[in-house]
Amino acid sequence: MVIDNNFYMSLALREAWKYQGLTYPNPAVGCCVVGEHGEILGVEAHHKAGEPHAEVNALKSAYYKLTNDSYILALKESVDIHTHLLSNHNGIFKKTKLYTTLEPCSHYGKTPSCANLIAELGIEEVYIGSSDTNKIAANGTLKLSMNNCMVYSDVLKTECDALLLPFNKTLEDRFVFFKWAERLNGTTDEGTISSQSSRRQVHAMRDVCDLLVIGGGTVREDRPTLDARLVNGKAPDILILSRNKDFDRAIPLFDVPDRKVYIEDNLERIQEYKNIMIEGGSAMYTLTRGVVDYYLCYIAPSLGGNESIKFSNDKFTFLNVDKESEDIIVWMKRIENNG
Amino acid sequence: MVIDNNFYMSLALREAWKYQGLTYPNPAVGCCVVGEHGEILGVEAHHKAGEPHAEVNALKSAYYKLTNDSYILALKESVDIHTHLLSNHNGIFKKTKLYTTLEPCSHYGKTPSCANLIAELGIEEVYIGSSDTNKIAANGTLKLSMNNCMVYSDVLKTECDALLLPFNKTLEDRFVFFKWAERLNGTTDEGTISSQSSRRQVHAMRDVCDLLVIGGGTVREDRPTLDARLVNGKAPDILILSRNKDFDRAIPLFDVPDRKVYIEDNLERIQEYKNIMIEGGSAMYTLTRGVVDYYLCYIAPSLGGNESIKFSNDKFTFLNVDKESEDIIVWMKRIENNG
Repeated sequence: MVIDNNFYMSLALREAWKYQGLTYPNPAVGCCVVGEHGEILGVEAHHKAGEPHAEVNALKSAYYKLTNDSYILALKESVDIHTHLLSNHNGIFKKTKLYTTLEPCSHYGKTPSCANLIAELGIEEVYIGSSDTNKIAANGTLKLSMNNCMVYSDVLKTECDALLLPFNKTLEDRFVFFKWAERLNGTTDEGTISSQSSRRQVHAMRDVCDLLVIGGGTVREDRPTLDARLVNGKAPDILILSRNKDFDRAIPLFDVPDRKVYIEDNLERIQEYKNIMIEGGSAMYTLTRGVVDYYLCYIAPSLGGNESIKFSNDKFTFLNVDKESEDIIVWMKRIENNG
Repeated sequence: MVIDNNFYMSLALREAWKYQGLTYPNPAVGCCVVGEHGEILGVEAHHKAGEPHAEVNALKSAYYKLTNDSYILALKESVDIHTHLLSNHNGIFKKTKLYTTLEPCSHYGKTPSCANLIAELGIEEVYIGSSDTNKIAANGTLKLSMNNCMVYSDVLKTECDALLLPFNKTLEDRFVFFKWAERLNGTTDEGTISSQSSRRQVHAMRDVCDLLVIGGGTVREDRPTLDARLVNGKAPDILILSRNKDFDRAIPLFDVPDRKVYIEDNLERIQEYKNIMIEGGSAMYTLTRGVVDYYLCYIAPSLGGNESIKFSNDKFTFLNVDKESEDIIVWMKRIENNG
């Protein structure tokens, strides 16, 4: 194993992917802070919009590791962490290096600017994966360069761009991902498949989705609620993809407050939304194949079931593979032009 | 992400699993050397019997990182690396920490003793996952302790023991693993599934297996050679599990020199062997379920095919999940007593 800039960036990437689908309307970002001898001082990610950016979380961890000042651990608000770091850093970050999957933001939005913070802490080397093309937040590199910071761009750029794509798609028009759960032998039917931990993560994704697309068959058979109760989150609007519009209105999903439910035989409705999750099996895979940006698959450590996704000759690239508690979690994209 | 002893051991574990199935008759072992400030100096594994142990490979990487003495990079033989390290270390390892998934060996076998090397380099802290119960090589901890080295045992012990189980099983009686390749939707039929890189890894495993078990149906349909040509390795003996013993002897596997081929309707033959790989799909899964220690699955990023493993209600624990080139590689064990 080679311990180099790519290694530190890969740690930042791995941490960031754990929060993919959870940070909307913000991007998933990871950050690794490395000390002057190459020691890892902090590897953190952005968890949720409104919470600290990845750089702030990583600098917080690094500050605690370098100073043992536990006061900072209690601070949750980004502005408080910024303030504490700026008042107490005493130049300890001068020789550290910072690796971030996305160019640090240069604007004061819901949280203060990361580029400012990095510059004021005196960090002299910053390694960046993807450039920020969002006009409001961009120019972090310029701000850093003007403050005697060496900026190295395009570190694991392909991998960082793949992490960032969902965010860029929501800026452009919309991001659509297809989520399914299967057993080790590919089956998607016969009851609950993934672990409690995986299902909680899916509920957290529903909480930040604005539209959830589901098949009519699933609604009739499973009679689901399709809310985010496992994380006390909000329930997204629902598009039931079905030709037959006759549903038993006693099915719980119709009874969730502050939710719109559409029953339609096409996908035009998604144009009104930005962050869209599709849940389903083989039929939904086929029906939605043309609009999906990324696929998310939970693979459970079990056998059984009968039905799996029947669609020949599609090929994918695995973008990130993680094992969280019991299941394997795979983010992937379909490779175009596969005949 | 928490950067602690478990983190360094997890790096050693991750590296070691890449060589699981390739190190027989030796164990798969990983090692991480960490500098006095917590910087990672080397993460390496044992690759193949006769080649350097994980500790030697990791100390070699660390030495190069600390000294920039490129002479050591050209050394391949364990004894040469030992000699160079002992003659040139100048006390640079004094403040380093060494993490190894298995207690360092204390005997001079095909290679010199790792415990001796670690003690002579003056390393003061060693973190160990599994104890070595192999009588010939054991007592590394004692040797280290007698040389003013602090030894911390049982670091990620469960994970390290899972890595070591195949080795211990070969000492006890035999290790049997079932390998299959599937697509993302679980299918195992219709031609080549896994990547060239995965198939090369399987050939390297055949090279160190002493028996390969295969189903009669596969032999008749695929007419395979079942050798290790992709790595210029030796071909293992073959047990064809089949009631019907009538096979076309022009099938290439019968024509490989220095190989025994058994055609039998039961698994008793495995008792004559130590390191046994079973390759197959659903039928072989069912027939061999009672004798398998670990399962190894290659998941390819594609859809298609029709047949998958049909066996209800088996549950597994994923021991290691890796993404290598295109495929996902999963080592797992079946959980007993699953009704």
